[in-house]
Amino acid sequence: MRLALFDQDRLGLVNGDHLVDVTELLAGPGPYGPAGPLQRHIERGGALPADLSDLSGLPRVPLADAKLEAPLPRPGKIVGAPVNYLDHKAEMAYPTSIAELGVFLKANSSVIGPGQDVLLPYRDLRTDQEGELAVVIGRTARHVPAADALSYVFGYSCLLDITVRSTEDRSTRKSFDTFTPLGPWITTADEVPDPDALELRCAVAGEERQRTSTADLIFGVAELVAYTSSVMTLHPGDVIATGTPAGVGPIRHGDRITVDIERIGRLEVGVDGTRATPYAERPGRRARTAD
Amino acid sequence: MRLALFDQDRLGLVNGDHLVDVTELLAGPGPYGPAGPLQRHIERGGALPADLSDLSGLPRVPLADAKLEAPLPRPGKIVGAPVNYLDHKAEMAYPTSIAELGVFLKANSSVIGPGQDVLLPYRDLRTDQEGELAVVIGRTARHVPAADALSYVFGYSCLLDITVRSTEDRSTRKSFDTFTPLGPWITTADEVPDPDALELRCAVAGEERQRTSTADLIFGVAELVAYTSSVMTLHPGDVIATGTPAGVGPIRHGDRITVDIERIGRLEVGVDGTRATPYAERPGRRARTAD
Repeated sequence: MRLALFDQDRLGLVNGDHLVDVTELLAGPGPYGPAGPLQRHIERGGALPADLSDLSGLPRVPLADAKLEAPLPRPGKIVGAPVNYLDHKAEMAYPTSIAELGVFLKANSSVIGPGQDVLLPYRDLRTDQEGELAVVIGRTARHVPAADALSYVFGYSCLLDITVRSTEDRSTRKSFDTFTPLGPWITTADEVPDPDALELRCAVAGEERQRTSTADLIFGVAELVAYTSSVMTLHPGDVIATGTPAGVGPIRHGDRITVDIERIGRLEVGVDGTRATPYAERPGRRARTAD
Repeated sequence: MRLALFDQDRLGLVNGDHLVDVTELLAGPGPYGPAGPLQRHIERGGALPADLSDLSGLPRVPLADAKLEAPLPRPGKIVGAPVNYLDHKAEMAYPTSIAELGVFLKANSSVIGPGQDVLLPYRDLRTDQEGELAVVIGRTARHVPAADALSYVFGYSCLLDITVRSTEDRSTRKSFDTFTPLGPWITTADEVPDPDALELRCAVAGEERQRTSTADLIFGVAELVAYTSSVMTLHPGDVIATGTPAGVGPIRHGDRITVDIERIGRLEVGVDGTRATPYAERPGRRARTAD
C-alpha cells in the first residue's frame, strides 16, 4: 500500500486515482504533533487494513486535488550512507566507502514534501542533488543480523539528499532546512519484495543525471539496516537514505528535480535561490575577528 | 531552577536536598512518550513557577533516594561542535576548527542518564571521554543573530560526548547507544547569566583530565546557537554540545567518569566493556566478501 500525508496532516491511502482518508483509522485520535499521523501509525505497530473494501465508508479525495506533504515531516532520525555506490565513489574520487566511513546523520528539521522548494543557502558555493532510495524503519532494531533486517522495514520512499560542497562536516552540509525532500508517499514493504533490485532515476531541469539499479549498492538495504543497528538503536519511523549513484551535480534557482524509483513513485521539488547569501557572511565569532 | 527526571519519568524540581514532583504541574497530563515530561514542558513554553512556596502541596522525594534519569532521554536533535577549544585543536593536531567544520549531529538514541554505564562498542579501538557544556533550546530558533541567541536557551546541563577514534564519520563514531550521558538535571538559563564564564572539569577513574573555562570556547554559546540556527531550525528541547577542551583520553571497563560544571552540577557515569566486540567483526557486506 501507499501511505501519504495530505491537506495539513491527513493520512491517506492511495487507491487508484483517489486518496482514502485513513487518519483516525490508522493513527488513532489526534493531535499528532510535528511528527504527524503516519509516524503515530508506525509507532502503533503499523498494521494495515486487510481489505480495501473495508474502507468504503471513509472520505475520499481525488489524488489530483490533494496537496501532498512529506509523509514523515519530522522523523526521529535521518541516517545517510556516505559512499554506497561504486560509481559515485569513483566520480567523487573518494578513497573510501561506507565500509570505512560508516553512516552520517541529517537533521530531522530538513525534511520537505513534494512540490516544495529546496532553498539554496549560499550564493557562492555549489549545492548538489543526490537522488536516493529511503528506507523507513517499522520496529525497534538493535544489533539485528542482515538476514532478518528486512523484517524491520516498514516501507520505502524517494529521497533527495541535498548537499553543499564545502569544508564542513557532512551533518552541516546536508542539514540545511529543506535539504531532505521525501515522498511522494511511503510504499509499504510488502510491495517491495527485493529492495536491492529497483531502478532509480533522478533528473534536474528535465535532464536525466542519475540512473542506476539499487542492485549496485555496496551495502544493500539489509546490510545497511544491520550495520546501522549495530551502531545506534533504530526506532519506528527512523529514515535511512541508502546513498546516491554517480551523476550528482549543481542545482540552480528555478530547477525542478525529480526522483523516480520503480515500485515506489516519483518525487518532484523545485529550487529557490532567492534567499542565498555569501558564504563569508555566515554567522559565528570568526566574522567578528581579524584572523 | 534545576529540573530533573527521576523514578521512571517523573519531573522534579530540585529544592535543597529534596525533589518536588512537578510532573503534571509543568508538563500537563501524560503519557509523555519516549521524549519524557521535561521535553513536553519545554514544548509547552517552559514557564517556571514564580515562587517555590506555591509548591508546598506537591509530593517530595529526598534527592538521595531518587533514581535520576537523563533529563531529556530522546531530544529532537543533538548538535555537536567539533573543534571549539583551541587547546583541543592543538592536542588533536586538527588543521581547522568549528569555523570551517560547522557542526555535527549525534543520534538522539545515544542518551543515557546519571549513574548509567557507557558501553564500549569495540574491544580493539580507542574510545574517549569528552566533557562538555550542553545547551538546551527553549523556543524555535531560525537565523537568530548572536546578540539575541541566549534568549532562545531554556537551560544548561553537563554532557559527555563519547567518541570512538576510527575512520568513520563523526555521526557514527559519536552515536553508539549510551554515548551521550546527559544530566544530572537542566539548570534553567536564569541561573546562568553568562554561559561563557563557567569552570568545567572532567575526571576519569578519579584523575582530572580536563579543566577549562567556557571563556575559551572559539564559538561562544551565543555564536554557536546563532551559527547552528543559520544551518538548521532549532526546536524546543534540542541539545547543543558546545565542544570539549584538551585532555580527551581513552576510557576503560570499570572507569567512573565525572563532569563538573560551575552553577550546573555534577554528572557521573560508569564504563562497561563486557559487550565490546572486535572491530573487524562489525556487520556489513564487507565482512562477507574477500576484497
